[in-house]
Amino acid sequence: MTAYDDLLAHERETQALSQVMGRLGWDQETMMPRGAAQQRAEEMGALETVLHARRTEPRIGEWLNAIDEAALDAVGRAQLRHIRRSYARATRLPRTLSAEIAHVTSRSQGIWAEARAADDVGHFLPVFREVVRLKREEAAALAEGREAYDALLDDYEPGATADSIAGMFDRMRPRLVQLRERIMGTERGQPGLSGHFDGAIQIDLSREIATRFGYDWRHGRLDRSVHPFTSGSGADVRITTRVDEKEPLGCLYSVLHEVGHGAYEQAIDPAYALTPLGEGASMGVHESQSRIYENQLGRSRAFTGWLYGRMADLFGVTGGAEAFYAAVNRVHAGFIRTEADEVHYNLHIMMRFDLERDLILGKLEPEDLEEAWNVRFVTDFGVAVDRPSNGVLQDVHWPVGLFGYFPTYTLGNVYAGCLHLAMRAALPSLDADLAQGEVTAVTSWLRDTVQRHGGLYLPADVIEHACGFPPTEKPLLDYLEAKYSALYGV
Amino acid sequence: MTAYDDLLAHERETQALSQVMGRLGWDQETMMPRGAAQQRAEEMGALETVLHARRTEPRIGEWLNAIDEAALDAVGRAQLRHIRRSYARATRLPRTLSAEIAHVTSRSQGIWAEARAADDVGHFLPVFREVVRLKREEAAALAEGREAYDALLDDYEPGATADSIAGMFDRMRPRLVQLRERIMGTERGQPGLSGHFDGAIQIDLSREIATRFGYDWRHGRLDRSVHPFTSGSGADVRITTRVDEKEPLGCLYSVLHEVGHGAYEQAIDPAYALTPLGEGASMGVHESQSRIYENQLGRSRAFTGWLYGRMADLFGVTGGAEAFYAAVNRVHAGFIRTEADEVHYNLHIMMRFDLERDLILGKLEPEDLEEAWNVRFVTDFGVAVDRPSNGVLQDVHWPVGLFGYFPTYTLGNVYAGCLHLAMRAALPSLDADLAQGEVTAVTSWLRDTVQRHGGLYLPADVIEHACGFPPTEKPLLDYLEAKYSALYGV
Repeated sequence: MTAYDDLLAHERETQALSQVMGRLGWDQETMMPRGAAQQRAEEMGALETVLHARRTEPRIGEWLNAIDEAALDAVGRAQLRHIRRSYARATRLPRTLSAEIAHVTSRSQGIWAEARAADDVGHFLPVFREVVRLKREEAAALAEGREAYDALLDDYEPGATADSIAGMFDRMRPRLVQLRERIMGTERGQPGLSGHFDGAIQIDLSREIATRFGYDWRHGRLDRSVHPFTSGSGADVRITTRVDEKEPLGCLYSVLHEVGHGAYEQAIDPAYALTPLGEGASMGVHESQSRIYENQLGRSRAFTGWLYGRMADLFGVTGGAEAFYAAVNRVHAGFIRTEADEVHYNLHIMMRFDLERDLILGKLEPEDLEEAWNVRFVTDFGVAVDRPSNGVLQDVHWPVGLFGYFPTYTLGNVYAGCLHLAMRAALPSLDADLAQGEVTAVTSWLRDTVQRHGGLYLPADVIEHACGFPPTEKPLLDYLEAKYSALYGV
Repeated sequence: MTAYDDLLAHERETQALSQVMGRLGWDQETMMPRGAAQQRAEEMGALETVLHARRTEPRIGEWLNAIDEAALDAVGRAQLRHIRRSYARATRLPRTLSAEIAHVTSRSQGIWAEARAADDVGHFLPVFREVVRLKREEAAALAEGREAYDALLDDYEPGATADSIAGMFDRMRPRLVQLRERIMGTERGQPGLSGHFDGAIQIDLSREIATRFGYDWRHGRLDRSVHPFTSGSGADVRITTRVDEKEPLGCLYSVLHEVGHGAYEQAIDPAYALTPLGEGASMGVHESQSRIYENQLGRSRAFTGWLYGRMADLFGVTGGAEAFYAAVNRVHAGFIRTEADEVHYNLHIMMRFDLERDLILGKLEPEDLEEAWNVRFVTDFGVAVDRPSNGVLQDVHWPVGLFGYFPTYTLGNVYAGCLHLAMRAALPSLDADLAQGEVTAVTSWLRDTVQRHGGLYLPADVIEHACGFPPTEKPLLDYLEAKYSALYGV
């Protein structure tokens, strides 16, 4: 055994235990009896202690020093890149600080839920000050000469910097605000669907869609949960959805979104399973897969034509494919990010990015956050926030200490825009296929160009490798403007 | 923190991780996608390595030496009894031996499944010789002057010895053989149920029965699996059942059986959760709970009267309560232990006990096992085994290295007989309650006298504590003779 083999063997057991942790999280949201929450927290805490010890194991440093990197191939070097990065993170963060963050964010999440239910920012503020203080400390401990915010961002999107993201977002924002204003200026409010949509049939149709989009049931399953999510890597990648019998699109498009995440994990080269390369390249690249399945493919005119046929068969939906396409792509003003349409979604992200960056850099204090949020919202969305639960208290991310995560949602959309452009060039029959509900060619293209590589490349390189050009916001904006100008006649 | 506190804190994390292992096993049998088996084995292997390291942690020995046991209360002393026992087991067994056992039994289980399907003992024999050799080594390593078999038995039934069990079984066997012969000599074959029994309705009725018997859904759930089982302790105790739409009694009585196991775990004093006292006292005591729920209560004339009414309502079963009672208690010759009735069941166990004891003691060699099995079967059951899958290859226990486990099934029946006698004395209205499907008083009695104590007492003491007399086989045999003499008029 060489030092490299020893290191990878250690890493493999850590990854296996990390999969167990993921499975506990899945179980908690789908299967766990309600009365087991406290015991589950203790079980996960015990496993987290084991994982932390393995991730900070001093032999990792010794193995890393002993390895002759020049003798490794590209895969070996990529493995080391991931291991170096996570070992540096794990060891730079004082154990007392990470324990305090775990403790405070756990408490903070409960208080936030109360504050949101009561629309009471003041109730949340004291613990949120603690959260921000600790995350600033964490960022400082990890920064190593970088901007503090970059140290947090790097955990989700390796290689990205706040400055480059800010530059991109600044170019996107005026075009999106203008598009939004043009659409909202029309009187053409699109109706949604109405009626009763049996939950079991929604799940059946969800399975049919997932199967068509290449989700592999031998290595996955679909369950219900309050919030849809994807869990697991390698041979066991599970997805969930939510079901509302008055509104079926939420279920179906959540499934398409999660199938994007899930199919990505399932498509990664099995040789990378239980190694650092055995997961998606970054949160942004992950989101690019979920978004392209959900939006560029799933909300296309061609695919919604096929889906309308199924909806008519199964639920008796009427009104024609064109009205259904419009309903699926309805642009509507709204306060809530998770309910936002393609036009509004990135505006939600951009304001969060600017605000959280300022919070971490100390340019904004927690007590001034609500006002900053509300001012920005009027500017970008043209309406005033009516209450905190529709505003600054809506997302769980900040209460649990996730700073640096939000921008990866828009990076995912940007990447999806690039991939969509390249994919259309490579697959001339794309719309004809989608109109038949046939997506084999497109999922194969994504598998070959993006998914199978797992964590082999840095995020931006994944996109450039697949598209032939480095990621830029232009294809996404062109796509949105063309699609929604046509749809709304603006 | 005293040494005792440190020890219990260590134990608590180990127990939490052990619960995680149990949850992975549950998931594997109920939820896991088929293609995930190999990855799951690796995940469980990684967790087993963690658990083994924690169980053999040298500080446990130091803490045990440092504790002033005289200063502890009864609970503290009982905790130490469990910890001493498992630490001794874990440290006496050479790591290489336990790794080899894990490896060989894993392989052996697969080969056994093939051999059973092909009715080919010769295919299984080579690996089974390995299993027996290793289990003999294990027994020798753990024996410390005791009979080798006792060292294995002790893992499942602390305080029991092969000699005392053999004495009890020798007293039971002639009475059971005689009872069996009297019944099988009659011409009164009892018919089973026939018809179609919708699976979803079976599950609904299963839930209703579980609820009546005190199963706590806030801390549990019911799913389907190939073989019914109970999983977990403390706040999360899950049960499973199997469903056959041609034969509903298998589902319903499996549920009653598992509810016995599950309600036991759920009733243990929450103060013991995630400590060594937080699980049932032994396999035998556990089985006493499942058996008394399933048989003495569930197959009583009174309860089957209530159940007949539900079966008539839900499935249109006809024929009257008396015929239903007879169908539920049908005595029939059969080769398979898991399908055996109350009269035959213990005869299956006794022959396995004698055979496995001789295997471990070297009085019987693997190549002679099949013949020994077949000879004994004719003697006790009056019929010849027709093929190995109906004989020596039927159970998974020996292929996976479980020696010393079988006798706990009959110990459980014996304990259940004692508890049933004491319970009837304490609850004069028992039959009137059962006839209404009302089991609150009886489950409360079991909770108070047996279940809440968890692992506080040694198994035999649990029964004596609850019944006021030490466990003996007499109440069980008296119950069986009275019940089946009346039912078959013999």
